[in-house]
Amino acid sequence: MTQSILVVNCGSSSLKLALFDENENKLASAIAERLNGSDAFARIDGDDRTVPLPRNANHKQALTALVLAFRERKLMPAAPTSVGHRVVHGGETFREAVLINDDVVEAINDCAGLAPLHNPVNLAGIEATREQFPETPQVAVFDTAYHQTLAPHAYLYALPESFYRDWSVRRYGFHGTSHFFMANEAARLLDKTLATTSIISAHLGNGCSITAIKDGFSVDTSMGLTPLEGLVMGTRCGDIDPGLFDYLSSRGMQLADVHKELNKNSGLLGISGKTNDMRTLCELADQGHEPSALAIDIFCFRLAKYVGAMMASLDHLDALVFTGGIGENSSRVRQKTLGHLKLLGFELDADRNEHNGRQSGGRIESAGSRFPVLVVPTNEELVIAREASRLAASFR
Amino acid sequence: MTQSILVVNCGSSSLKLALFDENENKLASAIAERLNGSDAFARIDGDDRTVPLPRNANHKQALTALVLAFRERKLMPAAPTSVGHRVVHGGETFREAVLINDDVVEAINDCAGLAPLHNPVNLAGIEATREQFPETPQVAVFDTAYHQTLAPHAYLYALPESFYRDWSVRRYGFHGTSHFFMANEAARLLDKTLATTSIISAHLGNGCSITAIKDGFSVDTSMGLTPLEGLVMGTRCGDIDPGLFDYLSSRGMQLADVHKELNKNSGLLGISGKTNDMRTLCELADQGHEPSALAIDIFCFRLAKYVGAMMASLDHLDALVFTGGIGENSSRVRQKTLGHLKLLGFELDADRNEHNGRQSGGRIESAGSRFPVLVVPTNEELVIAREASRLAASFR
Repeated sequence: MTQSILVVNCGSSSLKLALFDENENKLASAIAERLNGSDAFARIDGDDRTVPLPRNANHKQALTALVLAFRERKLMPAAPTSVGHRVVHGGETFREAVLINDDVVEAINDCAGLAPLHNPVNLAGIEATREQFPETPQVAVFDTAYHQTLAPHAYLYALPESFYRDWSVRRYGFHGTSHFFMANEAARLLDKTLATTSIISAHLGNGCSITAIKDGFSVDTSMGLTPLEGLVMGTRCGDIDPGLFDYLSSRGMQLADVHKELNKNSGLLGISGKTNDMRTLCELADQGHEPSALAIDIFCFRLAKYVGAMMASLDHLDALVFTGGIGENSSRVRQKTLGHLKLLGFELDADRNEHNGRQSGGRIESAGSRFPVLVVPTNEELVIAREASRLAASFR
Repeated sequence: MTQSILVVNCGSSSLKLALFDENENKLASAIAERLNGSDAFARIDGDDRTVPLPRNANHKQALTALVLAFRERKLMPAAPTSVGHRVVHGGETFREAVLINDDVVEAINDCAGLAPLHNPVNLAGIEATREQFPETPQVAVFDTAYHQTLAPHAYLYALPESFYRDWSVRRYGFHGTSHFFMANEAARLLDKTLATTSIISAHLGNGCSITAIKDGFSVDTSMGLTPLEGLVMGTRCGDIDPGLFDYLSSRGMQLADVHKELNKNSGLLGISGKTNDMRTLCELADQGHEPSALAIDIFCFRLAKYVGAMMASLDHLDALVFTGGIGENSSRVRQKTLGHLKLLGFELDADRNEHNGRQSGGRIESAGSRFPVLVVPTNEELVIAREASRLAASFR
């Protein structure tokens, strides 16, 4: 009997679906964008036809339309065997993926204050899917859950204790499914067990984070209370002097405007003044555009600093792992970053790096490197499908 | 002929004076505190008598009173040979110490927006001293100047370019005189020239910062636009998620209140709920007070992360150097910090560390350590005196 596992990922104005079989083959995927807008739009990957949507379609209407389109194209049975939902914030409540019931829905809602832009739309997707497939076991997989193993010295800020007690201010970390996938992939590629594998995992997409993983568990990570902290990102500033807010306030800027600038107009986009796209930045830099070259330099230097910082949490290191759109594809970023880390013993093989490790089993370090360096394509959907399948099986 | 070099250090409500001869012997020192308050108070070190001050004495009145007291006790001639002033912020204008003239006073005033609590009182001290000793060459020594050698990838934040262009937002760094002194002392102790000496300098006092020094020059440092960024400090939070401000604002907290909490009630004091004094924290931790133990843990872990991060700026490392009240005296902090850095090759000698390096020429690393580790008492006054003496000589 063939299983079908539906993966649902709701963003603030988007919905992504993916369908897997029990052998982890992706059967189909689809996307709806600009939801709640007059130009809402949906399509199935590899299919030129657009999927018709009601005007100003919301997440629920988009889900219904895409599921119908999957069925019409015979990509999916009447109902999937299980559904896995990406949920951004699980607070301290969720240390792992869970089967969804009414209590879980309520608890996810309770965490919404920590992720006001994300948890409500994640819940909208869950509600719509539960309505559509009332008999199908559904599973919530949290971006934060994998980092719940951080110890207090790593998750607490140096703030008055009441900030944590009364307002839940602490480091949560994000990209957990991707970092967990990296740990598993690194163990597999290095022929080790997860429980003995220690890596530094750098997820470099439009959002970027880096995690120290010790014997399979997350022990430190760069994103914090929110996904704004840490590395330089596409449009987010990452680490900044906390005195900046008072400084800009004394110059007449409003907090809400500063916050928006730090989230939407900073990072690679802010420094370069051009784009948040690393490939374009590299082209611009090659054409002599100095702010673009500087954006790449700052991105790589700050990443290198974090590699060093993450080593404070590990007693051995099996590999430094790069993933995400930039991590998987930008040989320049990896080369520039590792160029700062010679004192720590990292050294790349130029040719292997140029080929993104594709001709060398993911390995891109030189023979003389103190530590292996890997390029591993991430697959967060697959992690969610695996968790959905595993927990749904326990449900039956 | 004996020279006398007067060092003037004005804080927001305090004034410290020190007097050196040309052989770098400290002849006398004095302090005035609670200035502008009804309980303003002044005394000369080693002298039980208080120095009389006018009620609500300001910086100028305190300076006049203390200089008079120095003279009465025959500690100082009619006028010193030169005067050195500590000035907190030199912006991008001052890359090194300078002889003070009217243009310099104006330029220091222009930097006051970057240090509104400090530069104006520094200027008050300069004005008072110039009035008192109109014929004496006076020199300004800046906390920020030593870090002006940072490259753009290290001093720029990942912010819109206009933040730097229009508002001078960048990493400046502080404690420059102390870090510079560390570089010189490390070179001396390791029998090297400054120009070939690369160290990581950890200044751990009530304020804390760490600097990567490459071949004698500062190339990266943890404090930024303001002295709030970086390491955990006595009452300051150091690094924090920049999303914290928006998060707390949505819970009704005002920016000014958050800023005050991060500066005055955070750091060691905030975590422990007890004190910002490391010695007391260690005693409390030994008595089983868990928040105090946690404060020490977080302080050391965050420091260890920064040691790793600073290595990204160096191609070799001659020594990790500890200084400041905590750095010079807390064997526990050094031991806990280095405990996180075994993967990086640092290892302490327990006995040498216990004696703060005093019986081993400052060295506290074990024979197997990949890098030397030093404890070096800082002496910012002496650096200021040296600069004053050097520049005054060039003046004549």
